[in-house]
Amino acid sequence: MMKQYKCPNIKDWKSLCERPLQNQENLSEQVKSIFDEVKINGNKALKIFTEKFDDVILNDFKVSQSETDEAKNLVSGELKSVIKTASENIRKFHTSQQEEKKIIETTEGVFCWRENRAIENIGIYIPGGTAPLFSTVLMLGIPANIAGCKNIALCSPPDKDGKINPAILFTADLVGIKNIFKVGGSQAIAGLTFGTETIPKVDKIFGPGNQYVTFAKQLALNYNIAIDIPAGPSEVLVIADESSIPEFVASDLLSQAEHGIDSQVILLSNSERVINEINIEIERQLKELPRNEIAKIALQNSKSILLNSIDEAIDFSNFYAPEHLILSIENAENFTDKIINAGSVFLGNYSPESAGDYASGTNHTLPTNGFAKNYSGVSLDSFVKKITFQNITKNGIKNIGKTIELMAEAEELMAHKNAVSVRLKYLENEN
Amino acid sequence: MMKQYKCPNIKDWKSLCERPLQNQENLSEQVKSIFDEVKINGNKALKIFTEKFDDVILNDFKVSQSETDEAKNLVSGELKSVIKTASENIRKFHTSQQEEKKIIETTEGVFCWRENRAIENIGIYIPGGTAPLFSTVLMLGIPANIAGCKNIALCSPPDKDGKINPAILFTADLVGIKNIFKVGGSQAIAGLTFGTETIPKVDKIFGPGNQYVTFAKQLALNYNIAIDIPAGPSEVLVIADESSIPEFVASDLLSQAEHGIDSQVILLSNSERVINEINIEIERQLKELPRNEIAKIALQNSKSILLNSIDEAIDFSNFYAPEHLILSIENAENFTDKIINAGSVFLGNYSPESAGDYASGTNHTLPTNGFAKNYSGVSLDSFVKKITFQNITKNGIKNIGKTIELMAEAEELMAHKNAVSVRLKYLENEN
Repeated sequence: MMKQYKCPNIKDWKSLCERPLQNQENLSEQVKSIFDEVKINGNKALKIFTEKFDDVILNDFKVSQSETDEAKNLVSGELKSVIKTASENIRKFHTSQQEEKKIIETTEGVFCWRENRAIENIGIYIPGGTAPLFSTVLMLGIPANIAGCKNIALCSPPDKDGKINPAILFTADLVGIKNIFKVGGSQAIAGLTFGTETIPKVDKIFGPGNQYVTFAKQLALNYNIAIDIPAGPSEVLVIADESSIPEFVASDLLSQAEHGIDSQVILLSNSERVINEINIEIERQLKELPRNEIAKIALQNSKSILLNSIDEAIDFSNFYAPEHLILSIENAENFTDKIINAGSVFLGNYSPESAGDYASGTNHTLPTNGFAKNYSGVSLDSFVKKITFQNITKNGIKNIGKTIELMAEAEELMAHKNAVSVRLKYLENEN
Repeated sequence: MMKQYKCPNIKDWKSLCERPLQNQENLSEQVKSIFDEVKINGNKALKIFTEKFDDVILNDFKVSQSETDEAKNLVSGELKSVIKTASENIRKFHTSQQEEKKIIETTEGVFCWRENRAIENIGIYIPGGTAPLFSTVLMLGIPANIAGCKNIALCSPPDKDGKINPAILFTADLVGIKNIFKVGGSQAIAGLTFGTETIPKVDKIFGPGNQYVTFAKQLALNYNIAIDIPAGPSEVLVIADESSIPEFVASDLLSQAEHGIDSQVILLSNSERVINEINIEIERQLKELPRNEIAKIALQNSKSILLNSIDEAIDFSNFYAPEHLILSIENAENFTDKIINAGSVFLGNYSPESAGDYASGTNHTLPTNGFAKNYSGVSLDSFVKKITFQNITKNGIKNIGKTIELMAEAEELMAHKNAVSVRLKYLENEN
C-alpha cells in the first residue's frame, strides 16, 4: 500500500519528494564496452549483442517491405482505425506548434527573425517486451514528420523469432517511417551514435527504454549526439478534493503504478475522507488488474499525503515537479496559473492520464524525476533548430554602428569594432 | 595564414570540417575533485579555490549594493548609453519570441494547449579576464528577465583586488540581476550545482567559459542540472562572391579569429580572385590589431576553400554547420531557404557578425563545434518549460474513450484502459 502522511512539516517535503534511487554503477562499464564494440565492429558487434541479449541470430537488421506488408495484415481493422484516430489528434496538436516567421525591425534598418529547420537525421528507440509500445511511435514519429526530418531511423529489439511486433510496424508505416532496424538495448543506441554498415548515424536520439538504454543515451551525449530528455521512471501526482470521484482517482493512480515496479504515484488531498475512499478503491481495483504484482510494488514507493489546503497541495506539487499532474478538484481550470513545474497537466474528472498517453493529442514523452523543473516534454520544438537571421541595411548599420563599436572597444575586441568601422567608413566615402 | 583548398572532392569535406581537437583528459579529474570539495565543504572550498586560482582571499562572495553603486559611477556615460541601446534591441527581439496560448480542440470536447513557465532558478556564468564580457550579461539576463525567472544568480571570477569589472556590474543591474557572486571557474559551476551557504543551487546553468567551465557544465548534467548548450570554440563561416567587399569579409574573419587561438574561420567562394583579395586584406588589417598574435594562431586552424558555385558553398556550409554564417553574396536573402544547419545567419554586406554579437537584437550564445545540426542557440525558449494541459469534457471522453481503451488493451496496459472504462460506465449510469 501507499505510505500515508498527514500534514507534514514543510521541512520534510524534500525527503517526501525523493524518487526511488536507481543504481547505475554496475551497468556503466557494460554499456561503455558495448559502445566501444559497436564503434569498432559495426554490424558484427550488433549481431553478437543481438544473439546475446535477444536470443536470436539476425543476418539483416533492416525490416523489409514484405515484413511491413505482412505486419499490416496482422493488425486488426479495429486497432488500425483507433491508431489512425489518435494519430489525427496528435497531428492536429503538434501542427499547432508550428511557428510563423516574424520579422522584427529592432532598430530602423535592422531586421531580425527566426526560422525553424528540421534536425535532419533522427533516431527513435522503441522498447520491446511483450507489449508493443506503438503509441510512442506516434508520439515521436508524428512531430518528426511535421518538422520535416529527412532521415528517421527506428530501432526496436526483435523477438526470439527475429520479428518486431506488427502494431509497431503498422504505426511506423502510418507515420512515414521507412527505415526500421531490429536492434535493441544499448547496442541500438550505440549504432545510432556511430553508424554502422546498416544503421545510420543520427543527430538526435529519442525514446524511452530501460536503464541500459537510458544510460546509453546519456553516453551518446559525449559523442555530440543530442537526446530528447533525460529519463527516469514514470510518475503521476494527483490532487483530489471533495469533488473528486474516488473510483476515477484510484484508476488513474493504478494506471501509473502498472508501468513498472519503479513507478511512483503521489496522492495529495485536503480531505482525509477522500484519501481513505481512494485507498479502498485502489484495493478493490487492484485485484482485477493483470499487472497487479507490478502495481503493488510500485505502490510501496508511493505516498498519499493529507495537506491543509488545495493551495498547499499545489505548492507541494510544484516542489515535486511531477511528470503527470491530475487536478481532480473543483474548478481545476482556475488553478492552472499556479502550476509552475509539471510535464503535462490533466484537468477535472474526465481527463485521465491515459488520454494523454494515447489519444488526446498531447505528447506522452515527458520529463520525469523532477526534470519538469528544467525541461519541457517532447514537442515539435524537439525536432527543429531555430536559426536566427539578420539583414541590416546601409541605414541600419549607420544606426547601430556606433553602439557596436563602443561595446566592442569596451570588451577589448578591436577586430569586432573594426568590422563595423570599415563599413561605416566605406559608406561615408560613398556619399 | 589560412590553409587554401581548391574545389576539394566531396569525400574530403568531412576532414575539412573537423574542428581543432580539444583534449579534456587532464582536466576532468581536477574538475571532479573541485565538485567533490564544493559539495562537501561549500563556501570553505570556494574560498580555497578562489585563493588558488584567482589569487585573492575573499570572506564574502556576494557583491554588495555599495559595490554595484560604485561600479555604476565608474562606467562612462557613453558606454552606459550604448549598453542601454543594445539592451532595448535584444529585449525587443526576445520579447517577440513569446508564444500566445492556443487552445486546440483536437476532438469535440477534447481541449489541449501549452503554457510557458519560467525556469525558477537559473545561474549565469560570465568569464573574467582583462576584457569584461558584459554583452553576455545582456544576452542571458534579458531573456531570463522576460521569461520571469524568479531567482537569477550570476557568477564571475574576481580580479586580484577582489572586484568584478564595473561594466559587468552595471549591466547586471540594468537587466535586474541582484545576486552576483565573485566566484569563477569550475568552482562557480559546482557552487551553482550543489548550492553553498551563499550561492543558491539552480535548475539550469548558462554562459560561456574556458575548458574547465565547459567540462564543469557537462558534469553538472550528472547532478540533474540543465545547461544552455554544449560549448566549443567560436567559429564563423563566410560565403563570398564577386559582389562581396574583401575589406568587409576580411574584417569579419578577423573579428572571429581574435576570440582565441582555438577559434576557427572558414572562407568559401566561387571566385579565386575574391579569395586572394580577402587574404591580402587579412594581412593588411592583421597588422593593426592589438590581438593579432591570437588571430594569427587562429588563422592557422582556418581554411579558405574555392568551390564551384554558391550552391555548392551552401551545401558545404550545411555540412560544416557553422555557429555564425555570413552570406556576403548577391541577393543573399534568396538563399535563406537553403540554409539548414547554422546558429545565426548574417545576410549581405552590411550585416557583420559583430552586430549580432552586441546589438542587433539576436542572441550571441550559439551552438559551436557542429552542434548547429542538433541544437538551437539560446532564446527565450531556453528559459522556460512548455507545459501541456488538457481539459476533457464528459462528451470529450465519450468521443475518444473507445480509442484509448483499445490502444491500451493492445499495449497490455489494462489499468490504463480501466481509467477510461470507469468513467464511461459512470457516465452511462448518469443517463
